[in-house]
Order: sequence, then C-alpha cells, then structure tokens
Amino acid sequence: HCNLTGWWKNDLGSKMQVFGVDSEGNFYGEYHTAVSSAKQPIQPSPLVGSQHLDEDGQCTFGFTVNWKKFSDSTAVFVGQCFNGDNGEEVLQTSWLLREKVDSPPNDWKATR
Amino acid sequence: HCNLTGWWKNDLGSKMQVFGVDSEGNFYGEYHTAVSSAKQPIQPSPLVGSQHLDEDGQCTFGFTVNWKKFSDSTAVFVGQCFNGDNGEEVLQTSWLLREKVDSPPNDWKATR
Amino acid sequence: HCNLTGWWKNDLGSKMQVFGVDSEGNFYGEYHTAVSSAKQPIQPSPLVGSQHLDEDGQCTFGFTVNWKKFSDSTAVFVGQCFNGDNGEEVLQTSWLLREKVDSPPNDWKATR
Amino acid sequence: HCNLTGWWKNDLGSKMQVFGVDSEGNFYGEYHTAVSSAKQPIQPSPLVGSQHLDEDGQCTFGFTVNWKKFSDSTAVFVGQCFNGDNGEEVLQTSWLLREKVDSPPNDWKATR
Repeated sequence: HCNLTGWWKNDLGSKMQVFGVDSEGNFYGEYHTAVSSAKQPIQPSPLVGSQHLDEDGQCTFGFTVNWKKFSDSTAVFVGQCFNGDNGEEVLQTSWLLREKVDSPPNDWKATR
Repeated sequence: HCNLTGWWKNDLGSKMQVFGVDSEGNFYGEYHTAVSSAKQPIQPSPLVGSQHLDEDGQCTFGFTVNWKKFSDSTAVFVGQCFNGDNGEEVLQTSWLLREKVDSPPNDWKATR
Repeated sequence: HCNLTGWWKNDLGSKMQVFGVDSEGNFYGEYHTAVSSAKQPIQPSPLVGSQHLDEDGQCTFGFTVNWKKFSDSTAVFVGQCFNGDNGEEVLQTSWLLREKVDSPPNDWKATR
Repeated sequence: HCNLTGWWKNDLGSKMQVFGVDSEGNFYGEYHTAVSSAKQPIQPSPLVGSQHLDEDGQCTFGFTVNWKKFSDSTAVFVGQCFNGDNGEEVLQTSWLLREKVDSPPNDWKATR
C-alpha cells in the first residue's frame, strides 16, 4: 500500500516529513511550509493525521497542521496517493486554512 | 481555553466524542456521522486531530476522520471554538470529504 | 419552477435582488452584502447568473457578483432552490470569494 | 487590461470560448468540458459572467456554467488573470459544482 512515511514536496515548495504510520493508519510528522500569511516567521509545524491501508496502494488520507509556533491558524489537508508514471508515488491533496476570528459574525471569512 | 474533550453534536445530527486533549493539543476520538454517501452501513469512525491551546478560549482546531470501517473515504474538518450566548461552547467548522478515485484524471471530482 | 426573481436574504443579513429571469435562465440583479473584508465602504454590487428551469421547482443556479464599486474582488455563488415547510422557497448556496493578488505565487491564498 | 474574449484551455483539456466582454465587464460564452460525472453525453454549455476591468491587466472574474443540456448541475468558477512568462495571459481559477439533490437533508453532499 501507499506508505506516507518519509519526505514529500509540493508545487509551492512546501515540504513535509511523516515520521511513521502505525497499524491503525495514524501518523505524526512535521510540515515545513513555504508560504504563509502570518506576520511571524515560518517555523516547522507539527502534523497529525490518518490514512487508509488499502492493498491497492491508492489510499486516501488526511492530516491536520497546527501552526501554533507562529500563528493562530490551523490547516487540514485531505488527499489520495497515486502511483506516478515513473514508479514514484504522487499525492493529490486539497486543503482548508482556518484563521482565528474574534467573533462568530466574522466566521464567514475565516476559512480559505 | 476551549476544551474539545467530550461530546459534540452538529446540525445534521452527527455526533463526535473527543476522548481527551494532551498537552501538545493533540486529541483522539470517535465520529458518529448521521449522513453518508457510502453503500455500506455507517459505523462510528476514529478521528485524530490537533487544537491550539490559547488562553482566550477561542482556539482553532482540525481533525481527520478515517471512514475505513465502511468506505474508502477520508474527511477533514477545520474550525474554531466560540463561547455562545448561553455560556455553551459552539464549534464552527468547515470540511472536505475525499472519495477514492481510480486514477489521477478523476481527481477533479474526488473532493467535496 | 423556482423563480429567482425578487428579493432574497441570507443568514448574515445580506440581501439580493434578482431583476428577472429570461427564457434561457439568465438573470441580472444586485447584491447588497452585509459583510466585507474590503477597506472601502460597501456598495450594492451587480450580479449576473444562470439557473435551470426545471419543472419540479428545485433548480440549481449560479451567479457572479462583481464588487468593483469598492474592491478588486469577485464572488461566485452556486446553489439550489428548495420548497420550505411553510411554502416559502429557500435557497441553499455555497460561495467562493476571489481577492486580487499581485502574482501567481500568492495564488494559494487568493480564494476563500 | 486582461481581455477574456477568445478561447481558453485548462489542464484537464476543457475549453471555453468567451464571445466578448461589454463595457460593464459582463460576458457570455460557451464551455466545452472534458470531464463530467453526468450520465448523458457532454455538450457545449452556455456560460455567463463578469470581470473587473482594471488597468493593470490582472483582473479577477467569475462565471456560471449552466449544464442544462445534459445534467441538472450548475458550476461556478472564480479566478484571476495573470501575465505569464512568455507574454501569454494565464487564468487561475477555483470552482464549485452543484449537483441537484432531492431534499435539504442531502444538501451537505451537493457541492464539490
């Protein structure tokens, strides 16, 4: 199956390291983002998530990145692993970024 | 601060139980969805996530639900805790649901 | 079928007026938003869209709001008309708001 | 400024033709999608939208595609025009696709 353990890089230049996946599919890691809308300097940020352990190597997965080291925001990613043409595994993901807002009436603009 | 530990219910009738939040903000729990597009019967599903531990009680958080017990899909939720009018804590969340597709050309329709 | 012509109000207090729907399902109108992340004062903004003309009165539709009078942004809404319990028609919509960014590397944060 | 008039092609192989943009920024056109989740054969579909007319040629825009010729669905796109490295204009867009559902309790899964 698709093993998320190791380093991954996306088109924006962000990198993530998954430390390992346990028998339930849970994993921990660290996200090194290349982009940010926060005022403080970027720092590597902890991630925690879960993946399917399908035999066919095209599992779906999701994870949360907690940007607490430099912002009030949290991001979630959800995606699927594919076997690329050259034998490399490729991850396709979508994400949501939640910024902290001061009250519910501002909730409409909190997520991008 | 906002403590996610315990039971939460949303407008669709889904419930989730967060077992506890550790000192890093990580948490585990179980999601009891009321809605599904899967063919197999719904089952309680494991969730894993992370929250901020801000003093002001309006932290952002995110979590992943692995629907492996009855589907190939994975969902992620991201949101923020607010103090409601009556003293109750209210969670505002957005979500993405990733369904498994058989190849990258179908990736466009995999996430809702 | 569902006739979008007239005034509609959403949970945030925003209102829109659809001037009329032609035989192709195209319509024009004006959106009076109650919320904004722009610095300039809110102004009524033109909208243009299209709806299905199904017999069953539960048509899907979409429209674009051009905020040119007070910002560089554009919003799109997509949704469906439902017949509510009390005979009133109710619109369920989702939206995306695109803010202008200065270069493609900032594209990741342009849409919420 | 960015002139949307003409033919555009995306990474999935879909093409669209914008017939022309009027002085208000409104435009009509036709979308030739390369992908579909509908059962009926794909057909060229009418689109209607609106763009900003900024001097700097990096305007935001949005449009609605009405898939009535082969489905009950409606799509909206929102994006921005950029000047690519080789002088070509490039559109960056995000989209939402609304499928018709039979009742409000199914609304949660209607949009992707």
